[in-house]
Amino acid sequence: MNYAARVARVRARMDELGVDVLLLSVGADLPYLTGYEAMPLERLTMLVLPRRGDARLVVPRLEAPRVAERRDVFEIVAWDETDDPVALVARLAGRPGVAAIGDQTWARFLLDLQATLPGTEFRKASTVTAPIRMVKDAEEIAALERAGRAVDAIAVELRAQPFAGRTELDVHRDLVDRILAHGHQRANFAIVAASEDAASPHHEPGSRVIGDGDVVLCDFGGTMDGYCSDITRMFVVGDAPAALGDVYDVLRDAQERAVRAAVVGTPCEDVDAAAREVISAAGYGEQFLHRVGHGIGTEAHEDPYMVAGNTTPLAAGHAFSVEPGIYLTGRFGLRLEDIVVATDDGPRRLNEAPRDLAVVA
Amino acid sequence: MNYAARVARVRARMDELGVDVLLLSVGADLPYLTGYEAMPLERLTMLVLPRRGDARLVVPRLEAPRVAERRDVFEIVAWDETDDPVALVARLAGRPGVAAIGDQTWARFLLDLQATLPGTEFRKASTVTAPIRMVKDAEEIAALERAGRAVDAIAVELRAQPFAGRTELDVHRDLVDRILAHGHQRANFAIVAASEDAASPHHEPGSRVIGDGDVVLCDFGGTMDGYCSDITRMFVVGDAPAALGDVYDVLRDAQERAVRAAVVGTPCEDVDAAAREVISAAGYGEQFLHRVGHGIGTEAHEDPYMVAGNTTPLAAGHAFSVEPGIYLTGRFGLRLEDIVVATDDGPRRLNEAPRDLAVVA
Repeated sequence: MNYAARVARVRARMDELGVDVLLLSVGADLPYLTGYEAMPLERLTMLVLPRRGDARLVVPRLEAPRVAERRDVFEIVAWDETDDPVALVARLAGRPGVAAIGDQTWARFLLDLQATLPGTEFRKASTVTAPIRMVKDAEEIAALERAGRAVDAIAVELRAQPFAGRTELDVHRDLVDRILAHGHQRANFAIVAASEDAASPHHEPGSRVIGDGDVVLCDFGGTMDGYCSDITRMFVVGDAPAALGDVYDVLRDAQERAVRAAVVGTPCEDVDAAAREVISAAGYGEQFLHRVGHGIGTEAHEDPYMVAGNTTPLAAGHAFSVEPGIYLTGRFGLRLEDIVVATDDGPRRLNEAPRDLAVVA
Repeated sequence: MNYAARVARVRARMDELGVDVLLLSVGADLPYLTGYEAMPLERLTMLVLPRRGDARLVVPRLEAPRVAERRDVFEIVAWDETDDPVALVARLAGRPGVAAIGDQTWARFLLDLQATLPGTEFRKASTVTAPIRMVKDAEEIAALERAGRAVDAIAVELRAQPFAGRTELDVHRDLVDRILAHGHQRANFAIVAASEDAASPHHEPGSRVIGDGDVVLCDFGGTMDGYCSDITRMFVVGDAPAALGDVYDVLRDAQERAVRAAVVGTPCEDVDAAAREVISAAGYGEQFLHRVGHGIGTEAHEDPYMVAGNTTPLAAGHAFSVEPGIYLTGRFGLRLEDIVVATDDGPRRLNEAPRDLAVVA
């Protein structure tokens, strides 16, 4: 990745918006711009990137050895255990009129910075970075594609695995192992939810034993070389009850329509609406209780969101999930998810694992 | 855990400090008070806990099914994808003069809350919660002890494992599996660093193959039933070079002195100083580049910190790590860590795995 070019783009946008300094800690903006990810700990790591002049990475002395030198992008300023890192950041920032701070920075550091720099207006860093990060270049799409192929392979492997007799947690751990074995450096999540558990979209896998007749939702992804994967596929143990197949057909149709709607120039909310129309027409509108998708890149969830109210027009290079769901409390939940990239030649799926309701043992 | 009693204690302290409302999102305060942990996602989850009156957990509708009912502590207020959760929190909070916000809350939510509640003074939630969370009761110490026994068992198992020919990442993954297999619900970290890599205290395990003569630092821990473990032990593949043994003896003596210094009433910084004196006297003062320890509980790192400048006197029930280190750039790094609880009968270690430099194949 060409970090220096990304920094230049960010600086141009700081000029446009009148942002004097960008302050980045935990979260995806820092690795996007520098290749370094801050540890989510109580010791502050913060990139101080002024509109002009040298950028500095303020980092605890004991973590400094793990920071690769990136003199093209920043110099390292290490602080000792008895130093005040907030005072150090404030000193390096000068007296900025406007500072943009990383969206996921811990509130305690923002409060301390506000107290130290009372004349500074603080804004969200995403106002600077999101429009830039949203549009993926060819190298980024290739990275998303590699991660997508890895979870596709896992989804195919799962079709040959027996589910009956294992707990949700067993399958969850198996998925985490496979995510790593297939080349991700990090497993971000692996939701495994059987039948009525799957009616909770973000169910925490538990000790429930999967048995004959269960329908199992598997939603998993990781980070590979800085870019994320995210896929959802459905499995049924033994014969699917007829009612299940009918609902699944609605879902699959909804997902297909939403993917096809994702053409350049279309407002993001229309992708959501395309799926919602199909599901509502079938009588399950109330049971599709979340937006149809989220952007994906260095972060598992990022802009642009495919949600009612987001009128941002899709641009070539926007990458996002398309994942409608139907959740029937006390019975089961269904979701089907692919990552899609908007291109000038139309929407392009980055996942190609079979989308049918897979019958497993 | 008696969550209602914890909430009552927090409310009493809000009275003392004049805090009108506590706003908790991601981080350890929320599970400490309610048993529920917010998902670290872009959809806001926030507990609104006023000094008097009902507490409410604002939660995305799709996550509501995973929240256990806790009507003794809070009621659930679910928001839909097109709602504004910050406006909802602000409405439930009333017009507080002083709000205390969770230390790890994302900056974007704090900025939005500040814009929505311009008359409110925001403080860190830790000003309310830290003094309460710091002092562990018998049930909490028992939980820390169970987690400690689990990592002790792993440290003992490691002594029988061959290290040579495996990469740091292989051993790291093996540790993660063992942390889970021994009853933790979550593996928080597993640093594996060989020889010169170990001179970086927070080294990221990589593809370096461990070989004969390597000294290997293993620092690992997880969360078991809400409470954390954290241990560091040193391993040497084959014969230890004589120089290594000498430095390790200094480290072990330093750790022993620091543990013995941890008596009720002693300022936290004196625990750090006790280790530092030994290491400095041996000529390695500059190479002991971090504080000697951190508090531990529902969070892997929390108050009280054993660091120069922290004059807080140790109280019975304070639980913390004692982990001096000596880091020789380009050669190797050594660290030895136990969790210790201050009691009226003196310091008590919660880790008992052998502390010698373990010789492995």
